[in-house]
Amino acid sequence: MERKEFKKSPLYQSKKNIIAGRNPVIEALRAGQLIDKVLLFTNATGEGIFEIRNLAKEKNVPVQHVPNEKLNSLTNVQHQGVVAFKSSVVYQDLQQVVDWVNEKGETPLFVMLDGVTDVRNIGGIARSAVCCGAQAIIIPDKGVGALNEEAVKSSAGALELIQVCRVNSLLKAIDTLHLNGIKVFTSEAQAPKKLFELSFTEPCCIIMGDEGKGIQTYMNKAADDHFSIPMKGAFDSFNVSVATGIILYEAMKQRIIS
Amino acid sequence: MERKEFKKSPLYQSKKNIIAGRNPVIEALRAGQLIDKVLLFTNATGEGIFEIRNLAKEKNVPVQHVPNEKLNSLTNVQHQGVVAFKSSVVYQDLQQVVDWVNEKGETPLFVMLDGVTDVRNIGGIARSAVCCGAQAIIIPDKGVGALNEEAVKSSAGALELIQVCRVNSLLKAIDTLHLNGIKVFTSEAQAPKKLFELSFTEPCCIIMGDEGKGIQTYMNKAADDHFSIPMKGAFDSFNVSVATGIILYEAMKQRIIS
Repeated sequence: MERKEFKKSPLYQSKKNIIAGRNPVIEALRAGQLIDKVLLFTNATGEGIFEIRNLAKEKNVPVQHVPNEKLNSLTNVQHQGVVAFKSSVVYQDLQQVVDWVNEKGETPLFVMLDGVTDVRNIGGIARSAVCCGAQAIIIPDKGVGALNEEAVKSSAGALELIQVCRVNSLLKAIDTLHLNGIKVFTSEAQAPKKLFELSFTEPCCIIMGDEGKGIQTYMNKAADDHFSIPMKGAFDSFNVSVATGIILYEAMKQRIIS
Repeated sequence: MERKEFKKSPLYQSKKNIIAGRNPVIEALRAGQLIDKVLLFTNATGEGIFEIRNLAKEKNVPVQHVPNEKLNSLTNVQHQGVVAFKSSVVYQDLQQVVDWVNEKGETPLFVMLDGVTDVRNIGGIARSAVCCGAQAIIIPDKGVGALNEEAVKSSAGALELIQVCRVNSLLKAIDTLHLNGIKVFTSEAQAPKKLFELSFTEPCCIIMGDEGKGIQTYMNKAADDHFSIPMKGAFDSFNVSVATGIILYEAMKQRIIS
């Protein structure tokens, strides 16, 4: 059952397509509707909560525990301690995507997002990825911005064209990539190797980190190589969406020339 | 005299720092406050209007004529047919900037914006420009997004580090560039020459157009050369901020390697 739009605080205007209340969320999950995540009031108990947890697990939808105030700020209808965000994207299995790319005879070029939260940046990254012939974006089920309508809009529709793999562990995803012969590279300001000194002609995946915190240390350790985007001006860094565009352009260019 | 913030419609939330009313605008212009532009009700007459026009001309501030409804939508105080947008950026003279770059012994690398309206994109472009060692951004006095606080924020402060030249004719600006031996290049989807086949090691300026309409035909004709960013995926185009980042990266890389 689809609920009509509620009045929301301007802060959450971008989070369209909220489903609030126990039964509506249960029905949406049962119907196989695309759900980005379910927010549960930390102390929620009673009818439906057990079923919501089970259905979410079964459908691979992340559940996040939040204070009641958070739920109140999202909607002004009776949410009964449960709010779900509809997703605008169908998630794919990583191994299946790898197989599909190999079957097409293409060289895998993937992007993994480790904590990019701004949905406009995610949209921009998806757009560049499609332009540069990348086949998939890998995201964790927590800690990245929602692939909601705003992200799809910012991607100019590219998020609906590229394969999106949502995984519950990025480290496990790196294992899967390694098992498939796909190398993993990270962008690091301190890396001595410059972007254009690295070879992107073999199967590879580029990890992009949060604008503020960068790539997490354990992710950096799991990577096969690191590079820095050279910089001429005395300035901090590129916007993460622009940086990803530059890296993917370099990869594409190497593949075109080689 | 600085006015306190007014309640604005959400559409104009980004347009902070509005000055409304004849005397406040006159005082701001007289005091040499940085003003992005003045909006005048098309039929505005009477006290102050003549002085506002004169002061704006003297201070090189563009005046735009708009219907009263537009002004009403920006503020709910008595605007008396006059609203001014404060600027967050000091504008520089193009020839002076060229001289300054030459005196520093640097090779000019400029970006010209022909109709980029999204302030976040303008901010992202400024950020990439500073990262890649570009020294200036050239904008027309009409038809680009305001260099307001949101643009500065999106640029992570880069807009305050780069020279911004606001000119009343982009064509005249191209003349100035040509007289100073600076070549002008445009990015065109149909151009047979690929981005990396063009040489950016000589003094040059890159023109970026509006995301929707692209670069205006007469601007394209005035340019010395054209290039396309290669694309592997079957997709329309990069976001304009990402495209500019890619072009500036290519220019910087050529200058680093050469």
